[in-house]
Amino acid sequence: MKAVRLHEYHRQPTIEQVPDPEIAGPFDVIVKIGGAGVCRTDLHIIEEQWRDKSGVTLPYTIGHENAGWVHAVGSAVSNVAPGDTVILHPTPTCGLCRACRAGDDMHCADNAFPGIDSDGGMAEYLKTSARACIKLDPSTRPEDVAALADAGITAYHAVRKAAASLPPGTTCVVNGAGGLGHVGIQSLAALTATRIVVVDRKSEALKLAEQLGAHETVQADGSHVDAVLDLTGGQGAEVVLDFVAEQGAQQDAFAMTRRGGSHFVIGYGSNIDIPTIDIISTERNVIGNLVGTYNDLVELMVLAEAGQVTLHTKQYPLDAALDALADLDAGVVSGRAILVP
Amino acid sequence: MKAVRLHEYHRQPTIEQVPDPEIAGPFDVIVKIGGAGVCRTDLHIIEEQWRDKSGVTLPYTIGHENAGWVHAVGSAVSNVAPGDTVILHPTPTCGLCRACRAGDDMHCADNAFPGIDSDGGMAEYLKTSARACIKLDPSTRPEDVAALADAGITAYHAVRKAAASLPPGTTCVVNGAGGLGHVGIQSLAALTATRIVVVDRKSEALKLAEQLGAHETVQADGSHVDAVLDLTGGQGAEVVLDFVAEQGAQQDAFAMTRRGGSHFVIGYGSNIDIPTIDIISTERNVIGNLVGTYNDLVELMVLAEAGQVTLHTKQYPLDAALDALADLDAGVVSGRAILVP
Amino acid sequence: MKAVRLHEYHRQPTIEQVPDPEIAGPFDVIVKIGGAGVCRTDLHIIEEQWRDKSGVTLPYTIGHENAGWVHAVGSAVSNVAPGDTVILHPTPTCGLCRACRAGDDMHCADNAFPGIDSDGGMAEYLKTSARACIKLDPSTRPEDVAALADAGITAYHAVRKAAASLPPGTTCVVNGAGGLGHVGIQSLAALTATRIVVVDRKSEALKLAEQLGAHETVQADGSHVDAVLDLTGGQGAEVVLDFVAEQGAQQDAFAMTRRGGSHFVIGYGSNIDIPTIDIISTERNVIGNLVGTYNDLVELMVLAEAGQVTLHTKQYPLDAALDALADLDAGVVSGRAILVP
Amino acid sequence: MKAVRLHEYHRQPTIEQVPDPEIAGPFDVIVKIGGAGVCRTDLHIIEEQWRDKSGVTLPYTIGHENAGWVHAVGSAVSNVAPGDTVILHPTPTCGLCRACRAGDDMHCADNAFPGIDSDGGMAEYLKTSARACIKLDPSTRPEDVAALADAGITAYHAVRKAAASLPPGTTCVVNGAGGLGHVGIQSLAALTATRIVVVDRKSEALKLAEQLGAHETVQADGSHVDAVLDLTGGQGAEVVLDFVAEQGAQQDAFAMTRRGGSHFVIGYGSNIDIPTIDIISTERNVIGNLVGTYNDLVELMVLAEAGQVTLHTKQYPLDAALDALADLDAGVVSGRAILVP
Repeated sequence: MKAVRLHEYHRQPTIEQVPDPEIAGPFDVIVKIGGAGVCRTDLHIIEEQWRDKSGVTLPYTIGHENAGWVHAVGSAVSNVAPGDTVILHPTPTCGLCRACRAGDDMHCADNAFPGIDSDGGMAEYLKTSARACIKLDPSTRPEDVAALADAGITAYHAVRKAAASLPPGTTCVVNGAGGLGHVGIQSLAALTATRIVVVDRKSEALKLAEQLGAHETVQADGSHVDAVLDLTGGQGAEVVLDFVAEQGAQQDAFAMTRRGGSHFVIGYGSNIDIPTIDIISTERNVIGNLVGTYNDLVELMVLAEAGQVTLHTKQYPLDAALDALADLDAGVVSGRAILVP
Repeated sequence: MKAVRLHEYHRQPTIEQVPDPEIAGPFDVIVKIGGAGVCRTDLHIIEEQWRDKSGVTLPYTIGHENAGWVHAVGSAVSNVAPGDTVILHPTPTCGLCRACRAGDDMHCADNAFPGIDSDGGMAEYLKTSARACIKLDPSTRPEDVAALADAGITAYHAVRKAAASLPPGTTCVVNGAGGLGHVGIQSLAALTATRIVVVDRKSEALKLAEQLGAHETVQADGSHVDAVLDLTGGQGAEVVLDFVAEQGAQQDAFAMTRRGGSHFVIGYGSNIDIPTIDIISTERNVIGNLVGTYNDLVELMVLAEAGQVTLHTKQYPLDAALDALADLDAGVVSGRAILVP
Repeated sequence: MKAVRLHEYHRQPTIEQVPDPEIAGPFDVIVKIGGAGVCRTDLHIIEEQWRDKSGVTLPYTIGHENAGWVHAVGSAVSNVAPGDTVILHPTPTCGLCRACRAGDDMHCADNAFPGIDSDGGMAEYLKTSARACIKLDPSTRPEDVAALADAGITAYHAVRKAAASLPPGTTCVVNGAGGLGHVGIQSLAALTATRIVVVDRKSEALKLAEQLGAHETVQADGSHVDAVLDLTGGQGAEVVLDFVAEQGAQQDAFAMTRRGGSHFVIGYGSNIDIPTIDIISTERNVIGNLVGTYNDLVELMVLAEAGQVTLHTKQYPLDAALDALADLDAGVVSGRAILVP
Repeated sequence: MKAVRLHEYHRQPTIEQVPDPEIAGPFDVIVKIGGAGVCRTDLHIIEEQWRDKSGVTLPYTIGHENAGWVHAVGSAVSNVAPGDTVILHPTPTCGLCRACRAGDDMHCADNAFPGIDSDGGMAEYLKTSARACIKLDPSTRPEDVAALADAGITAYHAVRKAAASLPPGTTCVVNGAGGLGHVGIQSLAALTATRIVVVDRKSEALKLAEQLGAHETVQADGSHVDAVLDLTGGQGAEVVLDFVAEQGAQQDAFAMTRRGGSHFVIGYGSNIDIPTIDIISTERNVIGNLVGTYNDLVELMVLAEAGQVTLHTKQYPLDAALDALADLDAGVVSGRAILVP
C-alpha cells in the first residue's frame, strides 16, 4: 500500500509502497483509512521535537488523526466488524493497567501512539486495536470527522475538564482560534453557559469565532491582556484555554487568569516562567492537557453528529501529502487539512 | 498597648506604645492576644517583598497568626462573647461577595489581612471581625495553637485539596519538613492512606518527619529527584506538596511528579520555569495554594484537639519579638516561634 | 400596609392592614415588593402540611418568592442601597455557621424562611437581611423575575447538581413541565448537552416544552415509563428530575432511571417506596433537593438577563391574592401567578 | 473437579464432580481456588431472591468471592502468568463499553458475575478473564484475603464514595458491624478523619468495633436512633453506611442522617419508604452501592498488605461447604467463612 514515511529528521517524508499491515493478535483491527488529518505536530515530528519523547525508529509512517472503515479484525474483537465506519482514538491502550481501569486512556502504562511512536494513518491502511475503535453511523464520511480524532478530542478534553469551573457569570478565554480553538469554542457553547472571549491575531479568525459562539473577541495586538482584564472588571478570566502556548502567548495567557483561576496549557512550544509568589498570592493554577480519553471522543462524536461541533476541512489526495504539510507550514490552510487516500 | 511596628522597609520593627483598638462597627471583635506566631512572611514583609501586593502604609503592626480571648464585641456579634477562647482565621471577610458566598474566603472581594495589609497581632490586642473568630474549648491555651492560624491552615488547605488525588497505592512527596511541612505530614496521615515521602536537607528534620508519619525520607543532597523516582518505580509521585518553592526546589518538585500528577506550590521565592511540551506531553499540573478557608481552620482545630496535629513551638515574650525574628532568620528556631504578650 | 395573612389552617388567608416592618438590626433590609410569586407550597401551607416543619405561629403573612426595590437598610449594610432593584434569596442566613461558611445556604443553622416560618412577601413591604439581596440591573421589572426567587432557583439548583452527570450522550428526563419544569428544561439546555426528555400529562405542556428545548416529549398516560425506556434502548435515563413526586409519579420516576443513575426528588407529596435490593443491584440513587444557594440564584439571574431562562407569568393585583390562590388550586394558571402590589 | 452446585431453589446445594474448566478465548484465565468466601448472598441465592435478577440456569456452581493461583491463561493474557497469586474482582468485564471505559466495572454492559449468574468459585478451579485478575505478592495466602473480593470491596467502595463528605468534624455511622462493617470501619479509619459511630445489636460486635477504630458505639436496642442524634447534637450524621438495610434498619438509618446527609444502602432485604417531603425539606439522599470497581479492589489490597484492613475468617474444607452455609445461616460464624479446597 501507499504510505507517507519519514526517513530522516529535518527532511520531507516520502510517499512510497510498503507492505499492507496484517492481523497478528486477537484484538488487532485493520482500518481502511478514509481521512487522515494533517497536524502541526507532524511538522514538529519532522523538526525532531518529538524524537526523544517518542523514541520512534525511522523510517515510519506518520499520521495520528484517523477515520475510516474496518477492514479486518482479530479473533477476539467483538465491538466492530468489517465494513463498520469508525473513528480511531489516537492511542490503542492495554485495558489492564490502573490508568486504563480508571478510564484515563492517555496515561496507559503500555500506551502506543500510531503516527508518533509507530506506523500511523497517512497510508491506505492502519493497524490499531479494538479498544481504539469508535463505531459511527454508517452514513458518516470519515474525511469529515477525521480531524476530531486528535485536534477535536484535544480541545474537547480541555473544555470537559474546565466545564465545572465555568458556571453562568464566569468568563473563559480561548487563546488562539485555529482548528483546536474552533472545537474549543463550540464545545464551550455546548457544555457551559460561560461567557466566551476569543483572542487571536487574525481578524478573519475572530469573525469566524463569533459565528461559532464567541461572545467577545479580542485582537492579539499587544494590548490583548489589558483588553481581557477590561472585559472582566480588571479581574481576569476563571479559565484561559491556551491553544498557542508559545512565543509569549503562554505568559499572556497566565496574566489573563483571575484569582483562583486556571491556565489550561494545550498548545506547546515555549517555556512558561512564573514567580511562585504570583502563583501563591492569587492561588492560580497551570493545568496540563494531553489529547483526551476514549469517552471524550465518544462524547465529541455525539456533538458532531448533532451538528453542535463542526470543522472546516480542506481535502488533499494522499499523493499530495507533502503539499498539505507545506500549506500547513505556510499558514495557508483554512481549517484542517485532510488526506483522502 | 504595646505593639511591634514596622516603620521602614529593610529595618527592624520597633516595640512601642500605640492606642488600644476600639469597637467601631457592629461586627467588630477585639481579641486579647494570647499567642502570635512569627512567620517567614514577616521577614519577607520587612524585606519589602509584599509592599506592592499588600499596598500597606507604614508604620503598622505586623503579626498574622493569632489566637487569644475575646475582649469586646460589636452590637451584632452573635457567634462569640467576651471571655471566649478563639483562634483567628487570618482574613476578616465581607460575607457578601461571590467568593464568600461559596466559602472561598481567601478570594473575598473585600479581603483584609491584618498583619500584612493592616494592623496585626504582635500586640496586646487585635481588632478583627466576627467572621474571623473560631471559638475553641475554653481549656485551649492560645500560645499552643496560634501557629495553626497561618502555618497550619496553609499546609492543611493544600492537603485537603490534594486528598482526593491520593487514594491507597499513591505517593505524596512533602518537599520541606519545617513548620508547614510538619502539619502537612500529619494532615496527610489523618486524611489519606497515601505513602508519604518527605524530602529535606537536614537529617534531624527527616527523623522528626518519620515520627510524624512519613513512610520514607529522602535527603535533599542533589540526588533527591532520582531517589524519589526510584521509590516510585521511575514514575514520580501523584502529588508533590512543595513547601519550599525557591532556590531550585520548585524545579525539583515538578520533576518529582508523575504523568497526570500535580505540583502544589505552597512556599515561594523563585520562579518556576517549565517547557510547555513537558506540561502537555505528561498532562502535569502546577497548583497554587493560598492559606485556607475558615472551614479548613475549623477542621484543622478538630484534628488539633484530637491530638492528630501538633506543632513544636518556642515561646518568646512580646518584648523579645526582635529576638524571635532574628532567630527565625538565622534558622535556629526549632518549630514555630510564638510571641506571648 | 396591606398583607395577605393566614389566620387559621384550612381557611383562606385574609388581606388586611398590618404595621410596616422597621429596621431593627444593622444587617436588616426592607424591600418594597414589586412582585410576589404564588406557589403550590402556599396551598400546602394553608393545608397545614408545613405546620410542624415550620413551627410558625398564626397569623402571619405568606409569600416566599419576592423581588422589588430596597426601601431602607440597617447601619452595616454595604451591598445594597435604597432604590436598588433586587431579587431576594428566600432564606436570610446567619453567615457564620459551618453551612454558611461553605456556601450551603439552605442548611444554615440559624435559617429563616420568610413566608414559611415568618412574615413573607405577599404585602407591600418585606423585612429581610443584606445576605438575601441580589442586586439587579435597574431596568429589571421585579414582577418579571420574582418567580425565579423560589420556583426558578429550585429547578436551577437541581440542574446544577445534576449537570456533572450529564455529558453528551446521556439522557435527562424532566418529569413534570410546569413552572419549575420550564426552568429545568431551559437550565439543562444552557448548562449541558444532554438529551432532554420531558414527561407530562398535558399535550400543551409538552408543546411548550419543545419550544423551550426538549428533544423528546412523552405523554404521561400510563405507558410513559415504557416510552422512556424505549427512548433509551431499554436502559433508562442517567438523571430523572422529578418535579412532581406525588401520586405515583415518584415511583415512575425511579423506574425511569438507569443503572448508576439518579432520581432527583424536587416536587413532593407522596412517599417513595423502593426495595433495597433494587437500589443496590443497580446502584441507583435518590437525591434530595431543597431550593438553592445564593450563588445559584446569582447564576440563574445571569441566564435570565441573557434571555436563556424565561418564565410565563400571570399578574394579579395584591388585592386579588385569593383569586390567584384559587386559580392555582384549580389548575388554570398558565405559567406562574405573580402578585403586584 | 469438585464443585458446590445448586440444583434446585430452596434446597441445599450438592458437592459433586464436574469437568474442569478449559481455556476457550484469548483472555480466559483459569484460577486454582485457594479460598472461596461464603456470603449471605449465597443464602439469598438458594432462597431464590436472585433468580429473576441473575437469570441463571440451574444447576450451577456458587461462590463469588475468590482468590487463588493462576493455573492457565489464554493466548493474549499479558497481566498474569501461571503460578501468580491472584485475587479476583467478582465481575469479568468486557473492557469495551462506555462503563468499562470510565472505570465503572459494575455497570459493564456485558457483565458476568461468576457464582451468581454463571459457574463460581466454590470449586477446585474457576474460569474468569484477565481483566478480573489482580496480582498479589507471592507470599499472600489466598484464604486470608478471599473475603476481600466481595465483602471487602463492597464495604470499601461505599467508604471510598463517602470519603469526600467526611472531613474532620463530621460523623459517619456504620450500621451493622459484621464482616462488611468491619472492613467499613477500618477503611473509614484509613481514608478519613471522621468520627466513627458503630451501631449493632450485639455487645461483642461493638467491642470488636472499638478495637477496629470506632470512636463511639451504640447498641441497637430500640433507642439507637435517639442515641445517634444525641451524639450529634440532635443533628444526625453526615453519612450513614447501612450494611443491614432490612427489617426496619433501613428506616432507622435514614432517620440518623442529618440535613444534607446521605444514607448509603449497602445491605438489602426490605423496602425503604420515605415521605418525599422529608427528602426535600432536608435535602437528604439515598445512595445505592454495588460491589466496587477493579481499582477499588486494588486499593483495598494495598490497605490489606499494609495491615490496615484485616478480616477474621473461619476456614472450612470445600467438602464442608454445607456446614459453612448452615453456620452462616445460624449466625454462628465469627468473621467470614472461607472454603479451602
